[in-house]
Amino acid sequence: MLGKAQIKYIQSLRQKKIRHTEQAYIVEGEKIVGEYIQFNHPLKSIYATRLWIRENEDHIQRKKLHVVEVNEKELKKISTLTTPNKVLAVAEMNSGKKPDLISGFHIALENIQDPGNMGTIIRTADWFGVDSILCSENCVDIYNPKVVQSAMGSLLRVKIYFVSLSEVLNATRLPTYAATLEGKSIVRQELPEDAILLIGNESQGISESILELVKNRVTIPRVGGAESLNASIAAAVLMAYFQMKD
Amino acid sequence: MLGKAQIKYIQSLRQKKIRHTEQAYIVEGEKIVGEYIQFNHPLKSIYATRLWIRENEDHIQRKKLHVVEVNEKELKKISTLTTPNKVLAVAEMNSGKKPDLISGFHIALENIQDPGNMGTIIRTADWFGVDSILCSENCVDIYNPKVVQSAMGSLLRVKIYFVSLSEVLNATRLPTYAATLEGKSIVRQELPEDAILLIGNESQGISESILELVKNRVTIPRVGGAESLNASIAAAVLMAYFQMKD
Repeated sequence: MLGKAQIKYIQSLRQKKIRHTEQAYIVEGEKIVGEYIQFNHPLKSIYATRLWIRENEDHIQRKKLHVVEVNEKELKKISTLTTPNKVLAVAEMNSGKKPDLISGFHIALENIQDPGNMGTIIRTADWFGVDSILCSENCVDIYNPKVVQSAMGSLLRVKIYFVSLSEVLNATRLPTYAATLEGKSIVRQELPEDAILLIGNESQGISESILELVKNRVTIPRVGGAESLNASIAAAVLMAYFQMKD
Repeated sequence: MLGKAQIKYIQSLRQKKIRHTEQAYIVEGEKIVGEYIQFNHPLKSIYATRLWIRENEDHIQRKKLHVVEVNEKELKKISTLTTPNKVLAVAEMNSGKKPDLISGFHIALENIQDPGNMGTIIRTADWFGVDSILCSENCVDIYNPKVVQSAMGSLLRVKIYFVSLSEVLNATRLPTYAATLEGKSIVRQELPEDAILLIGNESQGISESILELVKNRVTIPRVGGAESLNASIAAAVLMAYFQMKD
């Protein structure tokens, strides 16, 4: 049974400000919550149907999870999904550490606004083993429920930092690359192992003041007619060329 | 001014069955409608605010466009967007031709369900100059408003056919490739100019009976931890390797 105060608390986590005050965010669905449990990520509470609880009794006891049984109607109230799926968890945020930019391959995101794009970029960065993602402070919140759902558990594995991009780009000794429409083709160059790759906003691209701080420009050559690529698609193709070596 | 019958008609185009009976679909927003006008794609009617009409008087007269002025409230009623944007058009479908599979690079999609993925694949295929997209009959309708919006005008340029994939794959003489998790790495092989590349469903992949008909298996090597890539991301990375040559 779920009290009114609990319902209100969980619903309040849809707001960025409250997520950050509470240092907590919502994760939903059997698959993703299962990954969080397997990864031993700290969960404040799990709200689940009787069926889910029965299927997961072992985990719940062994890992001493705090589980509240809810019925379909209650789950619908606290869920952010159109079709709620058996279980919702309130997860703790990772405390903010500093990125390690001595070596490795990192992507920097400026003003990425669409939660679906952000989640997909995180999932793709996880696939390609990107060492960290550096987000400008005006990017969408990575704990937004839509980001969490489309990242599909990759939030657990990818290191993500909110930073001042100008400070990072001014300070770094790593080679820097910006994705632009008029750069050197990504297929016609040797790419370094260690680098920072900058991806810009969905419609405005990279702002002038940030672009100035980046040495190299790379482009995905256009063969056909589209005016641009979706930001998460461009990021994926570039990550592939940087990270997949013969 | 918009009559009740007109509002009902436009709203009815949100249903696949009616779109296909009427051979018409909805296109929204200044940018995309602008592309349809520029491309001289047949539009049954345009519903636009006074501002849009004033800004586009030249086009309207020169191209003899049928335009109905609507106010914000009326636009909201007929729009499929959360934030309607000045103009909505009802476009005519292209009449169904047969794909030309003698040469060229084609992608085949089996059971792609998510409208956002479908739209993004169409836009990416347009960027990479893919000769045609072959959709299995159980793919999401390409005239679904969400597909139209995320394809960003690329529906105008990319040739898309709904086909029986087993018939096409049985009949073709082109080399065939399937995107799977256990294929040969996409970076470690010579890829042909002419080919059909098959991409499967978001969660189930490619069905056994279709996979049997495809000769080669390609994989995007995983460097990190994610369990899978989004279907539109996988399609984009593979299209890039097939279509971008040194």
